[in-house]
Parts: sequence; C-alpha cells; structure tokens
Amino acid sequence: VHEDRLQDLIERLRRFTRERRWSQFHDPKNLAMLVASEAGELLQLFRWVRNDEADAFARSPENRREIEAEIADVAIGLLLLADRVGVDLPEIVRSKIARNAEKYPAAP
Amino acid sequence: VHEDRLQDLIERLRRFTRERRWSQFHDPKNLAMLVASEAGELLQLFRWVRNDEADAFARSPENRREIEAEIADVAIGLLLLADRVGVDLPEIVRSKIARNAEKYPAAP
Amino acid sequence: VHEDRLQDLIERLRRFTRERRWSQFHDPKNLAMLVASEAGELLQLFRWVRNDEADAFARSPENRREIEAEIADVAIGLLLLADRVGVDLPEIVRSKIARNAEKYPAAP
Amino acid sequence: VHEDRLQDLIERLRRFTRERRWSQFHDPKNLAMLVASEAGELLQLFRWVRNDEADAFARSPENRREIEAEIADVAIGLLLLADRVGVDLPEIVRSKIARNAEKYPAAP
Repeated sequence: VHEDRLQDLIERLRRFTRERRWSQFHDPKNLAMLVASEAGELLQLFRWVRNDEADAFARSPENRREIEAEIADVAIGLLLLADRVGVDLPEIVRSKIARNAEKYPAAP
Repeated sequence: VHEDRLQDLIERLRRFTRERRWSQFHDPKNLAMLVASEAGELLQLFRWVRNDEADAFARSPENRREIEAEIADVAIGLLLLADRVGVDLPEIVRSKIARNAEKYPAAP
Repeated sequence: VHEDRLQDLIERLRRFTRERRWSQFHDPKNLAMLVASEAGELLQLFRWVRNDEADAFARSPENRREIEAEIADVAIGLLLLADRVGVDLPEIVRSKIARNAEKYPAAP
Repeated sequence: VHEDRLQDLIERLRRFTRERRWSQFHDPKNLAMLVASEAGELLQLFRWVRNDEADAFARSPENRREIEAEIADVAIGLLLLADRVGVDLPEIVRSKIARNAEKYPAAP
C-alpha cells in the first residue's frame, strides 16, 4: 500500500503545533511572514554565487545540507499556511501549472 | 491504486520546463530568487491585515483565490528548485520537523 | 544653504501618512512586511537576468524606470519604519559600515 | 556648514567595497538579492509579534538593537544598488512619493 507522504507531513506538523500550543501564533499573516523570511534565508545562500556556478555550488555536500535545510523551512511554512487556510496544496499547484501552460505557450 | 501526487506534479513541471526550453534559466540561484519573489507576493496580500482578522480575511472567496494562487507560485518555485538540486522534498521536510521537535521541546 | 534632503523626505512621508490617516496601519510589523514585499518586487525584475548581463540590463531606459520605482518603494518602507521606531537612519548605517569594516578586513 | 550625510555614506560604502575588491560581486542582480535577503532578516524579527504589540516590542533595548542592525543592512544594500545603477536615491524617492500622492488621494 502506497502511503500519502504529503498527508503524513501535514499530520506531523499538526501534532508538532498542537503539542507546543503554537496555533495561536499561526494565523495566515504570521505564516506568510514565516514563508517569506525563510525564503530570504534560502536566497542568502546564493547571493554571491554566479549563475554559471550555481549548480556546482549546490552539489558540494556542505552547501547542499544548508540548501536542504532552507528548502525544508520554506516548505514547512507553506504546508502550515496551506493547512491553516484549508487548501489542498497539490490541487492548487496542479491548477496553477495548467494556467501557466496557457499563459506561456510552449516553444514550437 | 494510490497515485503519488507529488511525483505527478514534479513530472508536470519537468514537461512544462522542457517544452519551453527554460531549463537554461532554472539554475539554483535563479530558482531561489523565484521562490523569494513569489513569497514576497504572498506577503503583500497580508501587509495591512491585522493578526486577529487574518483568518477571516483568508476565508473571503476573492482573497482566498489570490492566496491560493500565491501559495501555488511559491510551491512551484520550491518544487523546481528541489528537483534541480536533486533533493527528495518530503524526506527533507520530515527530517527537519524531527530536528525542530528536538530543538523546541513540547509544552508540558 | 544646503538642505537636508533626507529630513525633507521624512517630512513628506509624515504628511502623506497623516493626510491619509494611515498611521494606524503603520506599526513596525506591518512596515517590515512592506519593506520585504517591496524588496520581493525589486528581486522579481532580476530573476532571469544573468549576472554578467545585469549591468547592461539596468541601463536600458525601460528597465531602469522599473528598477528606480522598486528601489524607491523599498526606500519609502525603510524610511517609514525608521521614523516609526525613532532611529536616525544615516547614523545606524554609518555605525553598521564601521562594524562591517572590522568584521571583514580589507584585502592586503 | 551642513554636510550631506547621504553622500558621506555612499563614499564610505564605495571605499569599503573598493578596499575589499568586492565590486565584481556587486552587480545589480546580486545587490537586489542582498536587499531582499536582508529584508527577510528584518521580517524575521517581527514574525510572532502581534500588530498591537509591535511598537512596544520595538522599544525594548535589545529588540531595538536588532531592528536597527537589520534596517541598516537593508539600507546598505539599497545604497550599494542605487550607486551601482547610478540613481539619485532621494530624487527617486521624492518623485515616487509625489506619484503615490496622486494615486491615493488624501482622506477628506
């Protein structure tokens, strides 16, 4: 049986929040700030890296660990926010990709 | 049979990128910028909303559509970045939640 | 007589805010969000620009107008925030440059 | 004689950058990333602060020191960027305030 990995993460985050009584801080405004400030930390890692060196930079084990941690932090903020406002994250992403495909036609 | 919804999204994004020949622009530095600038747009929606009105704000249908679109844009940037650097997003999120649980002990 | 251009801007912003009765929205949290979301718009202009083309990009008149507008928006947010919390912006910048100079010794 | 404090800061930043040979890293794209990631750090300070407590929060000496440092970092990024692309920061701010005043008429 194939587990739903995303649902498992959402349930872990709900338990984490409940056990710390942090729900009071997790209104949508504060969670949007969480997402944006974690995105700022992700950005910080790449500030002085040149575009043509960014892939190699991301492959070095030490950088990779930092990148993974910052990607995870943004994702956690996003999962908390999606859960708080009650949206099905994969569904809205699927729908946005479809709209982008119309907006930006494929190269011939 | 339960489909893997996240893997499905990743494959849709790969096809989308390939058909537009955008892979050349999607180095990790630029994708980190994509994530952060989309997070800035998400943030913008909540700038003047008070904390104690943020949940009600997010329930209004018009606001909700905008919030969904911005959450989706951040998620798309994050999925593109995770795929580019080759990380398993649910796995790094699961691991980060576990580390956070140690770092911030639960309330008694 | 040499005018203080920064003080003039602060006074213009105070009048602007007062005439719109926006002071109620301009607590430091919301102004930090203003700064960060405007910084996200500035970032957005450079997402797909390569490092080695960024200077030329910024010299094109149309791009330049957009860059100026976004720089100005971030600056306005920062001036509003500095004024709200009562800090002397040039003084804290001068002091931070001095600390950075100690932290990062000059190349020999 | 009244000194131009902003021009003094710009000259200090030019010297700082020159002595470290950092000009090569300071293209407009990277400086936009600097501004946005420092704005993310500023944002981080206010993530869990309620709107109606944000002014009091900012008055506490310890918080104030952190807020000053982050405001200064954003301002430094902005001054470096404005200087790199050759814009007169007070002039574009003054012009943007004037346009905002037309866009958002004052309350009667």
